[in-house]
Amino acid sequence: MKCFHAPEQALHAPTSELNRGTMGPPFEAVSRAATVADALTAAGFGPLAPPPTFPDAIVARVHDAGFLEFLRTAHDQWQVLGRDGDAMPMCWPGTTMYPLRPGANLDAKLGHYCFDIMTPITATSWIAARASVNTALAGARMLADGGQGSAFALCRPPGHHAGIAAYGGYCFLNSAAVAAQYLRDKGARRVAVFDPDYHHGNGTQQIFYDRDDVLYVSIHADPQTDFPFFSGFADEVGIGAGEGFNLNLPLPRGTGWTEWEQALEAAMAALTRFAPDALVISLGVDTLEGDPLCHFRLHSDDFARLGQRVARLGLPTLFVLEGGYQLDLIGRNVVRTLQGFLNR
Amino acid sequence: MKCFHAPEQALHAPTSELNRGTMGPPFEAVSRAATVADALTAAGFGPLAPPPTFPDAIVARVHDAGFLEFLRTAHDQWQVLGRDGDAMPMCWPGTTMYPLRPGANLDAKLGHYCFDIMTPITATSWIAARASVNTALAGARMLADGGQGSAFALCRPPGHHAGIAAYGGYCFLNSAAVAAQYLRDKGARRVAVFDPDYHHGNGTQQIFYDRDDVLYVSIHADPQTDFPFFSGFADEVGIGAGEGFNLNLPLPRGTGWTEWEQALEAAMAALTRFAPDALVISLGVDTLEGDPLCHFRLHSDDFARLGQRVARLGLPTLFVLEGGYQLDLIGRNVVRTLQGFLNR
Repeated sequence: MKCFHAPEQALHAPTSELNRGTMGPPFEAVSRAATVADALTAAGFGPLAPPPTFPDAIVARVHDAGFLEFLRTAHDQWQVLGRDGDAMPMCWPGTTMYPLRPGANLDAKLGHYCFDIMTPITATSWIAARASVNTALAGARMLADGGQGSAFALCRPPGHHAGIAAYGGYCFLNSAAVAAQYLRDKGARRVAVFDPDYHHGNGTQQIFYDRDDVLYVSIHADPQTDFPFFSGFADEVGIGAGEGFNLNLPLPRGTGWTEWEQALEAAMAALTRFAPDALVISLGVDTLEGDPLCHFRLHSDDFARLGQRVARLGLPTLFVLEGGYQLDLIGRNVVRTLQGFLNR
Repeated sequence: MKCFHAPEQALHAPTSELNRGTMGPPFEAVSRAATVADALTAAGFGPLAPPPTFPDAIVARVHDAGFLEFLRTAHDQWQVLGRDGDAMPMCWPGTTMYPLRPGANLDAKLGHYCFDIMTPITATSWIAARASVNTALAGARMLADGGQGSAFALCRPPGHHAGIAAYGGYCFLNSAAVAAQYLRDKGARRVAVFDPDYHHGNGTQQIFYDRDDVLYVSIHADPQTDFPFFSGFADEVGIGAGEGFNLNLPLPRGTGWTEWEQALEAAMAALTRFAPDALVISLGVDTLEGDPLCHFRLHSDDFARLGQRVARLGLPTLFVLEGGYQLDLIGRNVVRTLQGFLNR
């Protein structure tokens, strides 16, 4: 399986992360990508190919133009204001104030576009996020060209929380969604995104929520207990033409393989019914027991089972890395998933 | 002029404040109250009377019951989760996710009720915020009883950013709004709230936005450049019965007395037309030139002019302290305002 990774992704390296009231080293650490790259290489998946630079217009197929301009320039504006460190929101509209107005300043835009406090924008976050999208697009192009049936995109920063004009959850640009749209634009009549990350991919859901040409299926922790809290409920089924093309399968904390596999079968059934031309998998491995941010109980062999099961769909498949925060085990579980998929 | 202050207000003492991306000592410091108390005492306004404890039901006249329960218990729940330090939001719905659901957990509630990152909830913030409301209510009761024509409530934490079910901007409970409602409930047919704080009192506006019995008039920095960014524009005039009973007078950064006085005259004209039975003043003195968070250019004598002009309305008047962050000068400017009002 061809694997892609862009070294520029390491340029998103915030100095710290505010999580549960405490400033500390980021869970979404730069070293995550290196550990995955090392494990892939050791398992014979290397060398990882650097992607070309795809035009911004491809990213703008799913993201709002003003949002992209904001992300690209936010840290420059932050510095113009004489501020140190990484850019982060201070205030947002909440439930009682009003939408952003034309001419709004940087602080208003930060509060408008961002939905959490854990996703600081550094001077080079834009370069890293764009490189992460390029990485996913390189895999998608390979599938679209029909050269191979599967690819792995070692993306970081992750993407599935980023919406049309919203960022958070460590995500700036939604690499999986951009790749899915790219596959559509290159001829796939229907594309499915399957998201087995521990967290609900609220961004991907939002991007495709009113569409019947892209199915979004997610297995994740119940938003009543876990991030992103305000999206991911089972009754979010899509709207308009998209009604019935969004499937959320929330599960309680503590879920192990037996119950998780039942949700997996429900997801596979939906994917089979949809009969897409291509599949994008938002591969989070933060479902592993012991992950510092998450509370499912999958074991390493379960990732091989996940890969095997997905392979049985028989679809051109692009894996895009999302979450996973147990630094010493992310790479192993990514490798197990891909090995399971390839049945080796 | 009778002055009130509750020592329990000092129990809101967060260890740090995240402001413009940097963790540092809080601008809304505990010592603010002491400096004002000292200046009042030195100027002959002492001793400051401690307020009685007013029932929670009075606070619930303007705040949502679920919100009050949340504020009262949030830090306990934070500790139950094994977390250190002060409670703060990590994630909010933003523009792309959905409203809070019944049964939501603490993190969801923090993200739902809070609209900024600068207002941490400590173990005793509730006690301090309630004491601050008691302080304002003690002054309001004095006015309602007809004993004296004016009172000063040394409130802290401040209140004017707190809405019906929303907190932020250092504010948890809206002392001025609770006091205004109390005056209504005690027989005042119309009550006006005048808010000359540098920042727009978005909470007070929201609380009375659909009502014609409480006029809200605010002079503040243009929300295009300043907190709270998403409220305070001139075209926010009230809704329903409240249309025409909300007057925002935003001014650009750098505004000095000459231009500020023009807005003051417009505010006084609106107050005169409304002909209220009582007036509550959300007295921020962060309009002073050199305030570390603000950008107007009022001088110390201007506060005496403000007090004089307000006195000319000839109304029973309750001053409630809001902002002001130049620690060595807050007290002096409060005193000047009150001296101006009393014309001494």
